[in-house]
Amino acid sequence: MENIKIAVWGFGAMGSGIASMLLKKTGAEIVGVCDIHPDRAGKDMYDILGIDRKGKAPLIIKSNIEEVIKEKSCDVAIIATDSYTKNAFPKIKFCLEKKVNVISTAEEMAFPKAQSPELAEEMDRIAKENGVTVLGTGINPGFVLDYLILALTGTCEAVEVIKASRVNDLSPFGHAVMEEQGVGISPEEFKKRIANNALAGHVGFPESIRMVAEGIGWDIEKIEQTKDPIISNTYRKTKYTEVKPGNLAGVRQRGFGYVDGTLKIEMDHPQQILPQTENIDTGDYITIKGNPAINLQIKPEIPGGTGTVAMCVNMIPHVINSRPGLKTMLDLPVPRAIMGDMRKLIER
Amino acid sequence: MENIKIAVWGFGAMGSGIASMLLKKTGAEIVGVCDIHPDRAGKDMYDILGIDRKGKAPLIIKSNIEEVIKEKSCDVAIIATDSYTKNAFPKIKFCLEKKVNVISTAEEMAFPKAQSPELAEEMDRIAKENGVTVLGTGINPGFVLDYLILALTGTCEAVEVIKASRVNDLSPFGHAVMEEQGVGISPEEFKKRIANNALAGHVGFPESIRMVAEGIGWDIEKIEQTKDPIISNTYRKTKYTEVKPGNLAGVRQRGFGYVDGTLKIEMDHPQQILPQTENIDTGDYITIKGNPAINLQIKPEIPGGTGTVAMCVNMIPHVINSRPGLKTMLDLPVPRAIMGDMRKLIER
Repeated sequence: MENIKIAVWGFGAMGSGIASMLLKKTGAEIVGVCDIHPDRAGKDMYDILGIDRKGKAPLIIKSNIEEVIKEKSCDVAIIATDSYTKNAFPKIKFCLEKKVNVISTAEEMAFPKAQSPELAEEMDRIAKENGVTVLGTGINPGFVLDYLILALTGTCEAVEVIKASRVNDLSPFGHAVMEEQGVGISPEEFKKRIANNALAGHVGFPESIRMVAEGIGWDIEKIEQTKDPIISNTYRKTKYTEVKPGNLAGVRQRGFGYVDGTLKIEMDHPQQILPQTENIDTGDYITIKGNPAINLQIKPEIPGGTGTVAMCVNMIPHVINSRPGLKTMLDLPVPRAIMGDMRKLIER
Repeated sequence: MENIKIAVWGFGAMGSGIASMLLKKTGAEIVGVCDIHPDRAGKDMYDILGIDRKGKAPLIIKSNIEEVIKEKSCDVAIIATDSYTKNAFPKIKFCLEKKVNVISTAEEMAFPKAQSPELAEEMDRIAKENGVTVLGTGINPGFVLDYLILALTGTCEAVEVIKASRVNDLSPFGHAVMEEQGVGISPEEFKKRIANNALAGHVGFPESIRMVAEGIGWDIEKIEQTKDPIISNTYRKTKYTEVKPGNLAGVRQRGFGYVDGTLKIEMDHPQQILPQTENIDTGDYITIKGNPAINLQIKPEIPGGTGTVAMCVNMIPHVINSRPGLKTMLDLPVPRAIMGDMRKLIER
């Protein structure tokens, strides 16, 4: 049986992580990589990854996707280029029309109908016309604050209120994330950025909230989000940034989902560097008020980078096996590590 | 659209709990109940449940399944009569041949090929011939020590070792469970029962271990199980039993799964009454050694009775939507609470 053929589009932290993971798997093969960044385009994938080719031919990263993906030239394209559905859409469309399944890391693609219902319908139509599947996934959205919550509710006769939080440490991340999350800026700068809508923060609360609500059959009437500064009381320093006392260690973002005028889903996501300097434990926490009540914690939190990489790779067989169309984590079987031959997981 | 029609076979704690839950749901309807127990057969289901009929016609519990299930007379039969596949098999076969989907509470049915591979193949064949689906599920096996572990591994690049434990309190259970679990007996009596293979304990470790292993692609070469007495240091008393110091508060059962000579999956399930009298916290605990490492706890544990009832009911739409055949929790979408109209979850 032939290897499962995978193309990777976007070779930043996620795309290159996905490639590294795939190289360790049996029965899977990277057949092409596309990235427009001048540091990477034209280079050998193995050199960029710092991995010994072990006699294999070099795999040159192309800047033109037409050179990487042709009709049915691979089983799955993993697209790791964007956070927003509208930016990912043309790339997804390109792959689907080449009759190639797609897995997207874009946060909004975890539940695209939350914010882009027309594009979601369009992707579903294109995927079905071409007999292939498109899925958005990742650690969050995609797992911690949606899939895992849903799985727990599977043990409930009734659910009244869901509260969940993901308390994480941004220290391992680089300059781009520090900038997006406002780490190190002053409270005044924070206010200015919020006023100008120039602080990205976490992308994914509307997706997680709507996925949970639709999953259990609640009609969400309103979603609210807030962003508050996490002001540091201590001096904090990482390889990439420093935070003076009084400035921002990060941002606490919250999301609220209302059903029939009642707050039913509450999500809390404080992201900062070095939370332990103020005795804050990182972790993932889920509390379900219902029958039964459920209190879950995962300490420390499941790490974001590795988690997203793993979710994308581990969902490959499910996406290949799926009926055609736009799918979400609501539709497919349980994600799970792949420690054996990936080909054994393909049906027929 | 018509209600989803469900028959319940077996009206003990699980079957009657499933019926009570179903009566609270929208879009689902109990069309028949079968139970041979003289306290229940011939009685009105609502009377047995102690639930007001609210003007609905009585639903008389039948002792003869032929009167309850006829060809295509319902969408799903939930069979809550047995723990072992070989005992559940003829009942499952009956329903499948009537072209009715089946959900079984039998612990071994959570992964029947673990111990009854021939019957598993036979059920798969019969289900496919009749265009219907059969699933075994419950809280454990079915969720805590298998499905939940698998879902967590979905966030892992690699998994090395899995350890999980379920520490629960048997106090709410009645005489039958006290007897099966050896609560209150002396250490000598325990030894005798173990020697005579007369202590049931937890049914499900081979199923959970094989489900996890197959799910992530490990070839299990050997499964071992042990049962040890939990000797009480305190006097413990519940509504149903009492334990003198020196006698058994319960039994600690462990399961071990080996891959290539190495212990890869370790499960621990100490079941006793009133563990808090010796400062033991109940809970569900999962530790994955891998990349990343994951440490999960749910405190207190997800309760067994409600959890099993909920899993069976919440999987109804997935079983109806499934391709025909014998399915396990590995195959179907994420279980989740049903707070809206159950009919909305049916595809097409």
